[in-house]
Amino acid sequence: MYAEIISIGDELLIGQTINSNAAWMGQELNKIGIDVYQVSTISDDKNHIVNALNDALKRTKLVLITGGLGPTRDDITKYTLAEYFNSPLVRNEKVYNQVEKMLKKRSIQMNDLNRKQADVPEKAHIFVNYAGTAPAMWFEVNKKVVISMPGVPYEMKEFMTEQILPSISRYFKTQVIIHRNILTYGTFEAKLAEILSGFEDQLPREIKLAYLPTDGVIKLRLSGRGDNKEKILKIIDREIDKLYKIIPKYIFGEQDDSLEKCIGVLLKSKNETLCTAESCTGGMIAHQITTVPGSSEFFIGSVIAYSNRIKEKELGVNSATLEKEGAVSRQVVEQMAEGVRERYDTVYSIATSGIAGPAGGTLEKPVGTVWIAVAGNNGTYSRKFIFGNNRINNIRRSTLAALNLLRQYITGGLEQL
Amino acid sequence: MYAEIISIGDELLIGQTINSNAAWMGQELNKIGIDVYQVSTISDDKNHIVNALNDALKRTKLVLITGGLGPTRDDITKYTLAEYFNSPLVRNEKVYNQVEKMLKKRSIQMNDLNRKQADVPEKAHIFVNYAGTAPAMWFEVNKKVVISMPGVPYEMKEFMTEQILPSISRYFKTQVIIHRNILTYGTFEAKLAEILSGFEDQLPREIKLAYLPTDGVIKLRLSGRGDNKEKILKIIDREIDKLYKIIPKYIFGEQDDSLEKCIGVLLKSKNETLCTAESCTGGMIAHQITTVPGSSEFFIGSVIAYSNRIKEKELGVNSATLEKEGAVSRQVVEQMAEGVRERYDTVYSIATSGIAGPAGGTLEKPVGTVWIAVAGNNGTYSRKFIFGNNRINNIRRSTLAALNLLRQYITGGLEQL
Repeated sequence: MYAEIISIGDELLIGQTINSNAAWMGQELNKIGIDVYQVSTISDDKNHIVNALNDALKRTKLVLITGGLGPTRDDITKYTLAEYFNSPLVRNEKVYNQVEKMLKKRSIQMNDLNRKQADVPEKAHIFVNYAGTAPAMWFEVNKKVVISMPGVPYEMKEFMTEQILPSISRYFKTQVIIHRNILTYGTFEAKLAEILSGFEDQLPREIKLAYLPTDGVIKLRLSGRGDNKEKILKIIDREIDKLYKIIPKYIFGEQDDSLEKCIGVLLKSKNETLCTAESCTGGMIAHQITTVPGSSEFFIGSVIAYSNRIKEKELGVNSATLEKEGAVSRQVVEQMAEGVRERYDTVYSIATSGIAGPAGGTLEKPVGTVWIAVAGNNGTYSRKFIFGNNRINNIRRSTLAALNLLRQYITGGLEQL
Repeated sequence: MYAEIISIGDELLIGQTINSNAAWMGQELNKIGIDVYQVSTISDDKNHIVNALNDALKRTKLVLITGGLGPTRDDITKYTLAEYFNSPLVRNEKVYNQVEKMLKKRSIQMNDLNRKQADVPEKAHIFVNYAGTAPAMWFEVNKKVVISMPGVPYEMKEFMTEQILPSISRYFKTQVIIHRNILTYGTFEAKLAEILSGFEDQLPREIKLAYLPTDGVIKLRLSGRGDNKEKILKIIDREIDKLYKIIPKYIFGEQDDSLEKCIGVLLKSKNETLCTAESCTGGMIAHQITTVPGSSEFFIGSVIAYSNRIKEKELGVNSATLEKEGAVSRQVVEQMAEGVRERYDTVYSIATSGIAGPAGGTLEKPVGTVWIAVAGNNGTYSRKFIFGNNRINNIRRSTLAALNLLRQYITGGLEQL
């Protein structure tokens, strides 16, 4: 079964806000067997909303709309839908009480704009917002369903998870779609496609393979579809087993794994600890690691040594080495890794030193040059990377490369390099 | 003038990739006076591409397509467009040479899949890809233009900036659209809308106001449109002056400013320095600050004190205080701020200690409880925040709250609280 998403908001079209809602909704709809056929991002304009809704209802029987439900004047979705479904607005007491409660909790005085949020189309089934103020609405017309939700991500997500997805599941009967991701790091898309060419040729027709690269991580997505869930799961499992045999050294995880999650699992299972000493990554490695719930069990802390003074004083980097080799060098990054490991008394450590840019590059060490070291009970290992010219990309790619180096160190994969 | 964007990729519809390309393109098109009327995100499917292109060409005379140009089999955009424009594929030597050069630089052996990337529709004007391998294509039909680019963000951006946007500017004549953002922090959307109600009423008809909230920052976007650029600029400037008079204490910047950029500007202008001591934010404050180019001029470094051992040993937090008050307390966060400031010898410091969740909450200190301190020559100031239940949101909101607290400390705005 197919659904469409209509994302309403001028801020999306002029690019002030990235449409992350649609991606999340696509994932969640997929889990209950619904494919998103199209996402249409449109403006806060009555005619545009009406046209997009007409188009979407011609193609599919389920349309999810987000955005345009705020208390301010630029938000017109509710009024447009009331007119579209020929349904006058009436005050809803449950919504009113919830808005009142929500504002009270935040110590905000209720005003007329908030009060209007409790006026809803008479014909719609109303879902109360427990994370904000604007309610969600469910309209039915000729066995088709149109759902309108706020565009604020956490409000939309709470609606979807708690109320909308279960209602959709009950209302529609659907086919099974199963996606499995195999996550790889360490090679390039075309190279991987070449290695997997024979694998692709033999894939059964129910299974599709896609390559999804970002910042060096390439996701391989296997999608299977059919009526029998058990059968598809079995076929996908079989194909994934083959992948593990063809490209073992590139695979680091599955599904929503990330390098930091994998490292967390490895360290927790061995009861081992980690710290970092970061120069060019400026804390991003520590930040990535600590996004993982429970990271306090294995992550002790970091020294962000942005200035050379801190590299010397807090990490014990030798000032003569700094002088002679420069901060971006094998010697310095290894001293950083060893210094922080000793001082923070952990099993492993990661260190980075590089030129993130845009300034600071030289002929010998251009912008994008980054030294990364990992230290542990088997000694210190370091490697030079040359990324690109973009500061943010360099920080992000250094972070991933550092996490991958540690993963390989822990799993004994460094010898394969 | 209006354009439409067609984003092609199953990964966008099932939500494995967020469509950040469309947002960026919207911003850039706006700068040359083109409004994006609609973004349609569709699948790697021939019929769907043809239908979406037909629909878009009915509504606008410029269509930008991204995605589906990779070397792998799931990418069919080029073949679909060649058929749509009835144009056979021919080998392009310039593209071939560039692909060869690009792969050589990355030490990748050229394979048949790469070679095929140099086959392009005969009728299209071709732009060579200097950041990757797939070329961009420009088709013209009945005074309308269709442009196809790779979906890899940095390749698309390089194409747009260097080749596509200048070509569009030359080909079409356009109206002027000017957006100005005023960035606020410290109040809520409905409250701000109430305060600005009179301001909204008096806005001239050329100017539109929108509220764009994220994580506590509310962007006020003023958009002006017309034929005379100077006139619109003047009107917008006048309205912005009024905003500064109505809500001075909430405004922290304009346009693409961020709290970290503003802090950077403030510190550089005074030649002052900063360091952080982070527990629950796990390095995110340092990371945000060091995304700013030139941050090494004012940012010295950090102690990420995830474990209490590091709080004591590296920041000099009193063990009796830790025992008695707990790590998430005014006393501890103030000792962290003062400890790191002394040790790293900076003018200012920021410290955080909180319960990011999902575990670790108690009745007295629920998940989302965060203490933040700033220290400087005028003493130490700390404040307790209570955010929500989501770990990532708590880390992000703590980071913004901490940066704002520092900004207010530096600008003398703390007295107003």
